[in-house]
Amino acid sequence: MVKKAEYRSGFPEYLPSQRAVELSVLDSLRRTFELHGFASVETSSAEALDRLLQKGETDNEVYVLRRLHAEVADDHSGLGLHFDLTVPLARYVVDNAGQLEFPFRRYQIQKCWRGERPQEGRYREFTQADIDVIGKDTLSFDADVEIAAVMAEALSALPVPPLRLQINNRRLMEGFFLGLGAADPAAAMRAVDKLDKLDPEQVRRLLVDDAGLSPEAADRCLALAAIVAADTSFVQAVRDLGVEHPLLDQGLAELAAVVEAASDVATERVEVVADLRIARGLDYYTGTVFETRMVGWERIGSVCSGGRYDALATDARTTFPGVGISLGVTRLLAPLLTAGVLDASRSVPSAVLVALPDGGSRRACRAVAQQLRARGIPTEVAPDPTKYGRQIRYAQRRGIPFVWFPRAEGTHEVRDIRSGDQEVADPLSWTPPEIDLRPTIRHEELPE
Amino acid sequence: MVKKAEYRSGFPEYLPSQRAVELSVLDSLRRTFELHGFASVETSSAEALDRLLQKGETDNEVYVLRRLHAEVADDHSGLGLHFDLTVPLARYVVDNAGQLEFPFRRYQIQKCWRGERPQEGRYREFTQADIDVIGKDTLSFDADVEIAAVMAEALSALPVPPLRLQINNRRLMEGFFLGLGAADPAAAMRAVDKLDKLDPEQVRRLLVDDAGLSPEAADRCLALAAIVAADTSFVQAVRDLGVEHPLLDQGLAELAAVVEAASDVATERVEVVADLRIARGLDYYTGTVFETRMVGWERIGSVCSGGRYDALATDARTTFPGVGISLGVTRLLAPLLTAGVLDASRSVPSAVLVALPDGGSRRACRAVAQQLRARGIPTEVAPDPTKYGRQIRYAQRRGIPFVWFPRAEGTHEVRDIRSGDQEVADPLSWTPPEIDLRPTIRHEELPE
Repeated sequence: MVKKAEYRSGFPEYLPSQRAVELSVLDSLRRTFELHGFASVETSSAEALDRLLQKGETDNEVYVLRRLHAEVADDHSGLGLHFDLTVPLARYVVDNAGQLEFPFRRYQIQKCWRGERPQEGRYREFTQADIDVIGKDTLSFDADVEIAAVMAEALSALPVPPLRLQINNRRLMEGFFLGLGAADPAAAMRAVDKLDKLDPEQVRRLLVDDAGLSPEAADRCLALAAIVAADTSFVQAVRDLGVEHPLLDQGLAELAAVVEAASDVATERVEVVADLRIARGLDYYTGTVFETRMVGWERIGSVCSGGRYDALATDARTTFPGVGISLGVTRLLAPLLTAGVLDASRSVPSAVLVALPDGGSRRACRAVAQQLRARGIPTEVAPDPTKYGRQIRYAQRRGIPFVWFPRAEGTHEVRDIRSGDQEVADPLSWTPPEIDLRPTIRHEELPE
Repeated sequence: MVKKAEYRSGFPEYLPSQRAVELSVLDSLRRTFELHGFASVETSSAEALDRLLQKGETDNEVYVLRRLHAEVADDHSGLGLHFDLTVPLARYVVDNAGQLEFPFRRYQIQKCWRGERPQEGRYREFTQADIDVIGKDTLSFDADVEIAAVMAEALSALPVPPLRLQINNRRLMEGFFLGLGAADPAAAMRAVDKLDKLDPEQVRRLLVDDAGLSPEAADRCLALAAIVAADTSFVQAVRDLGVEHPLLDQGLAELAAVVEAASDVATERVEVVADLRIARGLDYYTGTVFETRMVGWERIGSVCSGGRYDALATDARTTFPGVGISLGVTRLLAPLLTAGVLDASRSVPSAVLVALPDGGSRRACRAVAQQLRARGIPTEVAPDPTKYGRQIRYAQRRGIPFVWFPRAEGTHEVRDIRSGDQEVADPLSWTPPEIDLRPTIRHEELPE
């Protein structure tokens, strides 16, 4: 990661080889989302400030826009930069409801901004990759299953440490609390949500004092929150706690279906678990909730979160329920790139450098390069007709694997500068090995 | 284009099929840039305000960032959103000079912001696609030739009306003015630069009054500015004006080389011309300058501009000369999309919709979809087991060309819903025609 002046901290920038890693990750995400038929959408970076502040949770984290020297009549202080892609999606869906087809399945990969105090995993500018399915009036629960499976598949393809996708269901939790006779299940939810920050004894006290549960009921809540399972065995574990409620039944069935579908596509790189302590702070989730930890990097928090919201947006006539999940691309990658865990095999796309024998052969060298490019081989021409040794070092410093030597007599040779192997080659037919066509991602194992 | 509330005008947003057009254009640009070995870079959206204002030309167009409720001590009013990608590149190069390889060849496709009064072709948020080559201390003139050729090739691949890439050289102009005895060649340059806005007689007066030229010399300047040629014949046309100066000779040779190289890759869709009235307002250009008009859309101004700058950036020890060109992707596309000139064949990536015979077959249908995806075919499963007629209309409304019908007995059929042709198909081998794999771009001819 680039060192930078303090005032710009929180605005991460990558060196070219690091950016190549990010591009490869973004390409991979897009490929998975599009294979599943999700359509790309971008929304404007600016939203009306009153809309951004509706949730009331990020007040002083929003960046307000103001035109320099704006006259009062033309002040844009009513606009701020979006801090996520969910609020803009809700506005976009309402604005364009008449022209969109529902269920509306979109992916959105864009920068977001928050005026947070920067730290590892927290940035002021960061890229999110979201998928959501939005219904009009109704949305089948199968969308929850799909969202989980698509994101699990997308995560499986990434060159990052193993991930753990943790799934829970707020209906399950609410039903459990109601079955225990909780008068204020929302207070119990808020208490359980604090298990990340407080120790169980403190949470137990909150369950008794704030949520009005008996000590025995509070213990059962803590027992519920301790359940983790990589398959549907969690259903029996919950049943064994002896709580009954129709909402609990619905939540258990939903969670089992989502976990099962996501497990179908999970790999050794992405573990899918039912984790019954996951609550998500935000009030608008109503069913399925997701969080994701990177193994060995739990300290940076959840890198991929989301859930079901029965009313993502409403206008005068219509309610738009939705389910979505948001991958924090910068939160995921910036720490790995900074630590040197990930890097690319080269800092340029070029697979071939065409060497320049002398200044007069520049046009001929350009023609050779163009012949290679015509067959999809990224190629650049050496900038100066220096000694070949210097031109080879030009390629080496950038990680370009092949140097092409045009010969006056019209024959050509190409050298793999990693092995030193050199062979006669025809610019109309020579092709590098598939793996050398674009930069590959190097994933260093972390020291234990 | 989406209708939107007035306060958001200038922040264009696309419907999914319009976004598919933009994505296809961005992919095409990236492909060309990478084939030529340009590396992707992104810089942070925010720059120090004093850096953004250094050129002094865009004072009140800059968006200043402020954290809502920022305390004075933590105020971020020192940051603004970048209004182009050149100022950030200069800062990035100096920040990272020790870790970059020079000549540094990068492309950068990012959003920029200006608080301009919105109008056709002018937006408050817009995407630019830049390529630049940056040297350390020196940069061969061949980089100018390369930049022109790469952008001409990139433009040729775009599904837009014909473009005219207009190239000039400020050394040529300056040498011409000096050869005429101009005491203040910069004033003469500024006068010629006004030919877009003023009539020739007014410019002639400026050349006499402000630049101190004789009426006869002013006429020769206007004659120079009137020269346009699609080949190197402009050299003789300039010679015929009878002005001599070493800088003029150098400028003529450079312009001839750039025009020749760019013409090599030009097609009927992109005309390359030497246009000797192109001056570019900005002071920092020192040699080659570029502008680009879209035929029939000249009113939106230049969609792709740039040039040579002998000192893009400097630090205590080093000067970084550069040459670059910047394509206004939003300026190019938003008017075409708004006018309905461009659209995509479908609003989703899906080539296939797998119909759902009944709720119980959802898992089997998902498996079929996954078999198609495994071979790179974007596929979605119908959301509900409604009547097949309704499921086919679901596909039609989105422009999905194929509907897949799983049959209970394990055989399958696929229907091209455009032709109605239906055939037995195997999900492990059936492939749609290559052209149907992704949305195609429709380019409506403009009414004359």
